[in-house]
Amino acid sequence: MNEVQSKYDYSKTLKQLGEVFGDRCITSRSVCERYGNDECFHAPKPPHAVIQPLDREEVQKIVRICNEFHTPVIPYGAGTSLEGNFAALKGGVCIDSALMNKIIKINAEDFDVVLQPGVTRRQLNQYLKDTGLFFPIDPGADASLGGMAATRASGTNAVRYGTMRENVVNVEAVMADGSLVRTAKRAKKSAAGYDLTRLLVGSEGTLGIFTELTIRLHPVPESISAAVCNFDTIDGAVNTVVQMIQCGIPVARVELLDALTLKAINLYSGTEFAEAPTLFLEFHGSSASVDEQTVMTQEISVENGGGEFKWTKNTEERTQMWRARHDAAWASKLLHPKGEIWSTDVCVPISRLAECINETRADLDESGILAPMVGHVGDGNFHLIYLVDHDNPDEVLLANQLHERMVVRAIDMDGTCTGEHGIGYGKIDFLKKELESAIRPMALIKKAFDPNNILNPGKIIQI
Amino acid sequence: MNEVQSKYDYSKTLKQLGEVFGDRCITSRSVCERYGNDECFHAPKPPHAVIQPLDREEVQKIVRICNEFHTPVIPYGAGTSLEGNFAALKGGVCIDSALMNKIIKINAEDFDVVLQPGVTRRQLNQYLKDTGLFFPIDPGADASLGGMAATRASGTNAVRYGTMRENVVNVEAVMADGSLVRTAKRAKKSAAGYDLTRLLVGSEGTLGIFTELTIRLHPVPESISAAVCNFDTIDGAVNTVVQMIQCGIPVARVELLDALTLKAINLYSGTEFAEAPTLFLEFHGSSASVDEQTVMTQEISVENGGGEFKWTKNTEERTQMWRARHDAAWASKLLHPKGEIWSTDVCVPISRLAECINETRADLDESGILAPMVGHVGDGNFHLIYLVDHDNPDEVLLANQLHERMVVRAIDMDGTCTGEHGIGYGKIDFLKKELESAIRPMALIKKAFDPNNILNPGKIIQI
Repeated sequence: MNEVQSKYDYSKTLKQLGEVFGDRCITSRSVCERYGNDECFHAPKPPHAVIQPLDREEVQKIVRICNEFHTPVIPYGAGTSLEGNFAALKGGVCIDSALMNKIIKINAEDFDVVLQPGVTRRQLNQYLKDTGLFFPIDPGADASLGGMAATRASGTNAVRYGTMRENVVNVEAVMADGSLVRTAKRAKKSAAGYDLTRLLVGSEGTLGIFTELTIRLHPVPESISAAVCNFDTIDGAVNTVVQMIQCGIPVARVELLDALTLKAINLYSGTEFAEAPTLFLEFHGSSASVDEQTVMTQEISVENGGGEFKWTKNTEERTQMWRARHDAAWASKLLHPKGEIWSTDVCVPISRLAECINETRADLDESGILAPMVGHVGDGNFHLIYLVDHDNPDEVLLANQLHERMVVRAIDMDGTCTGEHGIGYGKIDFLKKELESAIRPMALIKKAFDPNNILNPGKIIQI
Repeated sequence: MNEVQSKYDYSKTLKQLGEVFGDRCITSRSVCERYGNDECFHAPKPPHAVIQPLDREEVQKIVRICNEFHTPVIPYGAGTSLEGNFAALKGGVCIDSALMNKIIKINAEDFDVVLQPGVTRRQLNQYLKDTGLFFPIDPGADASLGGMAATRASGTNAVRYGTMRENVVNVEAVMADGSLVRTAKRAKKSAAGYDLTRLLVGSEGTLGIFTELTIRLHPVPESISAAVCNFDTIDGAVNTVVQMIQCGIPVARVELLDALTLKAINLYSGTEFAEAPTLFLEFHGSSASVDEQTVMTQEISVENGGGEFKWTKNTEERTQMWRARHDAAWASKLLHPKGEIWSTDVCVPISRLAECINETRADLDESGILAPMVGHVGDGNFHLIYLVDHDNPDEVLLANQLHERMVVRAIDMDGTCTGEHGIGYGKIDFLKKELESAIRPMALIKKAFDPNNILNPGKIIQI
């Protein structure tokens, strides 16, 4: 037993779950430890047991038993979140949605799909292949749709297609008392009562456990074109993006990578990108509209000191380019052999983006800590990938200080402590700083929905 | 004193409010009665007093006093809502935001504006005139932004620009205990905690009273083109729209008007529209993109039996056309001299729209009740304007039965009992039918936020 597990006694819960689920209630140490680790630096916090339910009724059974004995329930998707979102801080029972991965119904005419929460985004897009529809939201990892909804995920395509906030039509969720709630019908819009869909999206499993979702789909664009363009300065790149948005160019992706990130990517992928601030761009639309967007973007970029545009309409080249972008975090490890990845994000109003990035970069450069930067700049959202040797306490302290200064800087610029990773338990104090007066109403909702505090306790809000 | 006022004794509240606000706490019968009437058929329910606060602190003072003595507080914007949303069912104090109508700050680079809730949408667009930005959401009436946020309003442009759900960045609201909550910063996206912004948008003043909002703006399109096209059948018109959406045509407005509506409009405005199912369309974008959209739309329309397209890029003609559309409700009165307007709306998945409209139309035709139909068909949303002589009990009964069948039909088609008017007290029973399992969590939130049930009681949810 590890430190977390030994502190709490959930033997009554485990006994009852064993009676209902038999061997499917897994308590083996090695399995539980796998469920306590995210893709980031957080210390592992394994649950006492893991169950992979087959349907909503099994989720209800688990939650009812856990609620009776005040035992934490932690929902788990693909394990790709970054803020300790599924760490079992007080142990408890992990509900892994791996077997609830059925696509239930595609409503092609309505541009939506009904599915179970364990379906991953690649699985969904594979399934949609011949329908003329796709699911655009792309956080990089092959996350589950349930997990993406729970953390209000977004990623590279959000500038055009929105985040999970805009792309979840309704959810079915098991509440703390085991009851089932369905938040909305399938109409594209509704003014019928409180927006429980949006309340549950982004609640990180603290208000309910998803058992079914209806997700919005989009038509595959007739034409897709991608480009790479480098700049002398971060300002040149960011100003290009700001002006693109202001001109109403409906860019589908626009990613900023700094020189250090490109150095890492070149090392990792054997590519030969210029090691300078660079935009990766993608345009979707009709053939004529994509051509128009690219011409306008090039004009803007030249005015901001952009270099030559390297265009491609070739699918393979495009995939390679975005793979390089998505590998940035892993590639970064090559820059610091002992460094562990600590990926974090903030988001500011776009008018403050260049200023926020420049100040953050200057602070980093002065510190000597390595931290490549990548950004979904069309949304004002950027990530730092701190590389920290956890055996070096000075480095850890320094990285923490830099991180705190970055988040406070973003908040002071009327921005948010997280654009897309969520609060988990890593950013609870920053959430308090950011929203202050909103913490109490959040706590009121949590207490009303989950009086025994069993649903993913210790995340987002402490009650 | 009227029936509502005489049933409740709020003398302690009125005494304290009088001490704080003096003559500005208006209790005259004639004034109060003006505040109890909406634009629809609901019986007047006046408050005991009306105050026009000047700032958030005054709103806090009113709410604190009302909370102490368990007195209802009803927020009032421009008085243009349609489901009895601001009827003072148990009397109480009406907070009219008319004097809180300042535009505080335009952040042009970020495409947002900070304003007080009493600002109306026409006032805002007038103010934005030379900025290259505009606020697209257009419910027809010159509603206040606070009211529009409270009812999650949308209207003709929602198919392209979204509803108030997508266009409110954050709100500041006074909660039932008088405390002030600010729900979010100004970043374009955020994964920081529960989405209180979306929870308050559409809550119809039952969870908090808005004192400030940040609203998203959009760039004025380079080119705007509008068109009118009539069809032999409703099916032809609806199928045209469905196929337009499926082809990814980013139409800015697409309104369906049935033959009866055009008859009324021609009578009212002296226009000569063909009295047949008709689409009013508007396209926004670059010149090339608008041309492309129009060509594609015409091709689709011809395949669906559409007649000649009448195009205009002329601003005046366009304004006239949309005025005719927005006057539809008033125009309808000419069809039935004794008829009062009862405007209602439902919204269904677009795949069911033609079926829902056709069944509803057949039901109406059989009944003999006059009810012109207009629809924001790109969203699956349509309105009926029942014309009912309230002195004729048979007509009233028949209209109620037709209305109930229409709403139940929409819900059974996986749609919603209201796409944009809200629940008010007119649709509470339909909300229960539509969402069933979601009513309890809604009530939990209401009780947690407003334990004394003072905030617009009797709307959305009964506790």
